[in-house]
Order: sequence, then structure tokens, then C-alpha cells
Amino acid sequence: MTAHARIPSSKEQAPHNDVVLSCRVRMARNIAGFSFANRASPAQSQEILNLTKPVLLSNEIAQGMIWVDLNQSTVKDRRLLFERHLISKHLAESEHRRAVAISGDESLSVMVNEEDHLRMQILAPGFQLADIYQRLNTVDDRIESRVDYSFSPRWGYLTACPTNVGTGIRFSVMMHLPALKMTNEIERVRRAAKDLHLAVRGYYGEGSESAGDFYQISNQVTLGRTEEELLAEFQEVIVPQIIQYEHQARKILAERSAPVLDDRIHRALSILRSARLLGAEEAMKLLSRVRLGAYTGRLKGVNLDAVTELFLLVQPGHLKLQAGGADLSPEELRETRANIVRQRLAS
Amino acid sequence: MTAHARIPSSKEQAPHNDVVLSCRVRMARNIAGFSFANRASPAQSQEILNLTKPVLLSNEIAQGMIWVDLNQSTVKDRRLLFERHLISKHLAESEHRRAVAISGDESLSVMVNEEDHLRMQILAPGFQLADIYQRLNTVDDRIESRVDYSFSPRWGYLTACPTNVGTGIRFSVMMHLPALKMTNEIERVRRAAKDLHLAVRGYYGEGSESAGDFYQISNQVTLGRTEEELLAEFQEVIVPQIIQYEHQARKILAERSAPVLDDRIHRALSILRSARLLGAEEAMKLLSRVRLGAYTGRLKGVNLDAVTELFLLVQPGHLKLQAGGADLSPEELRETRANIVRQRLAS
Repeated sequence: MTAHARIPSSKEQAPHNDVVLSCRVRMARNIAGFSFANRASPAQSQEILNLTKPVLLSNEIAQGMIWVDLNQSTVKDRRLLFERHLISKHLAESEHRRAVAISGDESLSVMVNEEDHLRMQILAPGFQLADIYQRLNTVDDRIESRVDYSFSPRWGYLTACPTNVGTGIRFSVMMHLPALKMTNEIERVRRAAKDLHLAVRGYYGEGSESAGDFYQISNQVTLGRTEEELLAEFQEVIVPQIIQYEHQARKILAERSAPVLDDRIHRALSILRSARLLGAEEAMKLLSRVRLGAYTGRLKGVNLDAVTELFLLVQPGHLKLQAGGADLSPEELRETRANIVRQRLAS
Repeated sequence: MTAHARIPSSKEQAPHNDVVLSCRVRMARNIAGFSFANRASPAQSQEILNLTKPVLLSNEIAQGMIWVDLNQSTVKDRRLLFERHLISKHLAESEHRRAVAISGDESLSVMVNEEDHLRMQILAPGFQLADIYQRLNTVDDRIESRVDYSFSPRWGYLTACPTNVGTGIRFSVMMHLPALKMTNEIERVRRAAKDLHLAVRGYYGEGSESAGDFYQISNQVTLGRTEEELLAEFQEVIVPQIIQYEHQARKILAERSAPVLDDRIHRALSILRSARLLGAEEAMKLLSRVRLGAYTGRLKGVNLDAVTELFLLVQPGHLKLQAGGADLSPEELRETRANIVRQRLAS
């Protein structure tokens, strides 16, 4: 990770991205003959790194793979990787010997010695789970051709936490549900998700708040079903249903509360374009409303790519990067955030 | 009062109006031989009206005096007169026989059968108490030449409430003190005012809140001092001192908290220019910040006349007038208010 982090390119055209910001497939794998990461000795952890590094850096896995030794990296760099959803908070803060391998386009990342020896994920804009599942499957096969996974004919892939045993797979979508939030129907969605054994998390996964009306929805059961069954249910039934709920809520808001809706989205854009001090939480909330306004056609002249980018750029790690890596006081952070947002959203 | 209320003309050039919105001199007078208004019978009250009407409508008093019989007027019209500071809340809501005489330019108004038989006032933009005191003195003399005031050689002018006995005069200024409010020094000003026997009230006088950081400051003692002494103290000492405090506070804010100050004033203007729903209190607060920004030169391109006008136009009575006199629901009021503000402040 250098000081010249790549900014994601246009996501405006990604499928269903009026409601689905991004989607992700993650697989948990362990190497046979080693203790799970939390039980492994430092020597064993190092051995896992040595074993997997050449495999993950191979061109067979993806173009331009790089290896980031997290024990050699700075807190700032780990913060950036976390904000970009390339490593988990757990891996960022872990004391173990650990690393992450990242593809040149940042779509693929493989965490080494997180909860499992390998946690590989592909992240893509919009809703295209089937495509990225195919890609990750290929990556998985290529790794498996060179390392020996812990696998039980009866249970499937063995993982450190029983909830991942079986397929070890997790599908997740980052959904933007501002209308369901405004109409207070988000709690119904939460309850329905729970009944379907889905997890609903915030913008930064486990334990994080639903900043900016973003909800990460993922499957929790990985045992006793095939990957294809899980994918089909997620791709064909669950996510389309939530997309439809959000569309309905947007329609109802537009029909019954147009002034309230317009008031919120126009104020949001104006504040973002004029504030001189801006907190992260407020920025996310306002960007969320602008995103809603732009996708529903009620706000004209908004650069949606800039909005998407800003959800990342307003995070503290990225702000510091923009400020040349300087340590910023809380007030300077708020000022820098406001300046960047004003620049990017200038009409 | 017709449905075509005149909007005050340019006040931008009035003296010291970066801090003093307007000033007012009021005199309380009673007619000899009649009970005070609260003790008068309906017949006596009517007699006061009959007696004073021709006097007050004379061209000697002021150009284009009109007479509004408040017992014949609608609640809406009384609300408009109140919002324009031409009658008090007490007179608007009283059950007595009552009226108000108003000059063509609305600078002079004489309430009949308020707490006293006559409550005459001149209201002017900015800080020009000495001028308007001279004018009101002339009006008072001309009335006195035609009616017999209750006067005691020992006590002076007699009034219904002892606090007004003596000169019966009240000087007041409507001060805009946003910087003293932001720096929390407004309480020190309040305490100092109390020590000087001054009253500090809100935007609509007694019992009203200090909406939009406006504070009405007036003398409370009218006994044992001449009008000229009271005026000199008010004009030369008290008000200039508060103006100076506010100027200091603005300077300190600009030096020590420029980002906070700029954030507030730029957000305020942007919200006023974009909101689709706007409450009265929020509108006053935001207009106050824009006024501060414009007078301190930090906000460019703001039409200050429009801002001054909007403090009046955002009041419920004036909004209804703008909407053709229709009865508006609370939401319609907020919508109409936002529309008018957006129009008037369009960049």
C-alpha cells in the first residue's frame, strides 16, 4: 500500500447499483497439517505465510498480485486497507504473523492468518454475485492445486469457527436502503433476514453501525447446502426481494411525502457543497441522501461517481492520505473532509 | 390592513444596522377624566375611540394616517399587524373596544385602549433614536394640543401601570447579537443590562424568545428622570457599549474560530437556498447567521434587503398573506416558507 492509493473507477453502470453498492464472495480455507490460526505458534504462522506467498503471487491467481506483510506495515496503511474493505478489522489489529495478497485492481484479496489460514474474497460494484462467485471458484481451484486444504468428506471444508464449516463460503451484498430506513420498515427487513438466517451488519461489517443507510447482508449457514444452492437463493430470491422492498419504499415516499423527501435530499447536497467542517458520520448520512436523490432522478447534476468515491474518501485513513499522510487533529480532519467533499461535488 | 401589505423598503443603509436592526420610541398617555383602559366601561372605551380618532387621523400627526378598528378586523389582519410590530400581542387579543392608527409609511402607530388609552410609537431601521424621539415628541405635542392628558405636576404623566408613570417613555432597540450568543457572552450582557435596569426581551417583546439572536433592549425606569436624560444614556452609553461588545465578539470569532464561523454561515445560506420545508424558528436562526455572514463580509452575493424582509415574510401571518390568505396546514406553512425563502435568496 503506497501513498498513491488507486481510487475505484466508475461504478455508475454496475447492475442494480441504485440499491446494491457492492457485492462480495468470501471463502474460508485452511491448510492441512497446521493448527488453526488462533492456535498456531509463531513459527507455524510464519510457515503458512512462507507456503502461501508464492502461490498467491502467481499470475495464475490474478494480474499484478501484491503481498503486504502486515507486521511490517504502519497503522496508517492497515487503516487504509481496512477502509477499502481489503482486510478485516480483526486482521488489521491482530498480533499474529499475518499478510494480505491483493490483485492489481483490488477486486481480489486473500488474507493470510486471519481467523482461517486463508480468507479470500472478491469484491465488485453493484449486484453480480454469480460472476464473482465463478471467478473466486477459479482462484480457489488454482490455490487448491498447489496447497493441501483441510477437508473432511463428511463435513466439507474445515474452518476455525463452526459456522463456516462446510462450504466455507459467504455471499454478501452492501445494500443502500435509505427509503426503508425513512419509512421505518428497515426493522421488518431485519426480522425477515433473521428468520432466513441472514446476518445484517453495518458498513464495516461485524459490530459496525449502519452508517449512511448501508446494510451488509450475508448468509450465515454454510453447512449442509451446496455453494450453488446458497448462491441461487441469495442471488435469485433474497436480494431481489430486498431490492423490490426498497423500490416500493422509494415509490411510496415519492407519492406520499415528496416535500419531505425533496427537502432532505436538496438540503443534503447543499450542505455537502457548503460545509466548512464535516464529521464522518454526518458526511455518510448526507452522501446517502444525495445518492438516493440522484438515483431517483430528483437531484440533477450530481456526479454519482464522485459520490461513490466520497464514501471512501471521507474515511479518516483516506483523509490523512489526501493530506499527505500528516497526522490531523479532529478539527483538521473535519476541515479536510469538508474541503474534499466541496471540491468533488462542486456544481 | 389590506391583503396588499407594503414590504419595508431598503434598510441596508440605516445607521449601525450591522448590529441594530431597528429602534423604537414609545410613549404611554391617558386622557384626563376617564378610567384607565382596563377599568373603563365599554361606553367609556368607545368614547375614547370617538375622541381620539379625528385627532389621530389629522394630517398634522403624519401623512396618510389610517384607522383600523380592531373589533371589526379579522384575526388574520391582527396577526399581520402584530408581526409588523404595529400592535402588541395584548392589543391583538384584547376583548375591549380598541383600535390602532397607523401612518402611511407604517413608521408611526398609535394603539388606542391598550394598557393605556394611547400608546404611540415610532419604529425606524437601524440606530437613530434621537431622530425618532424628536419626531414622536412633535406627534405627542400635537395630540396634547387637542386632548387633555392625565398629568400630575408631582408624578408626571399618569399611566395604568406604575412602571410607566413619569415620562411614560420607553426607548428600545432590536439588537442582532449572534456573536455574543455564539461566544456565550450574551448572559453577561443580560446581567449587565439587569444592573442598569434595562429589560432584555425577544423578537416579539415581552415573554417572547430571542428568535434569530435578536434581543430587544429597553429602559424600564421612567420616573424621576427626564426624557432627555434617559435618551442620552441609552443613545450615547448603553447601546454603543453593546454594539462594541458584539463587534469584539465578531472579531474574536473570526480570529479564533474562523472555520466554525464559516461553516455555520455557509451552511445557513445553502440550507435557506435549498430547503423544501422550513420551520419559523429554524428560518430565523439561519437568516440570523446569513445576516452575520453578510455584514462581516464573509458571505458574498447576499441581498441584505431580502434577508431583512424575510425576517418578516417567514412569520405565519405574512406567509398566509403571500398564499392569497388561504388557511395553511402546518406542513403547507413550512412548504410555503421554504419556497418564498428560496425565491428571495436565489443566487
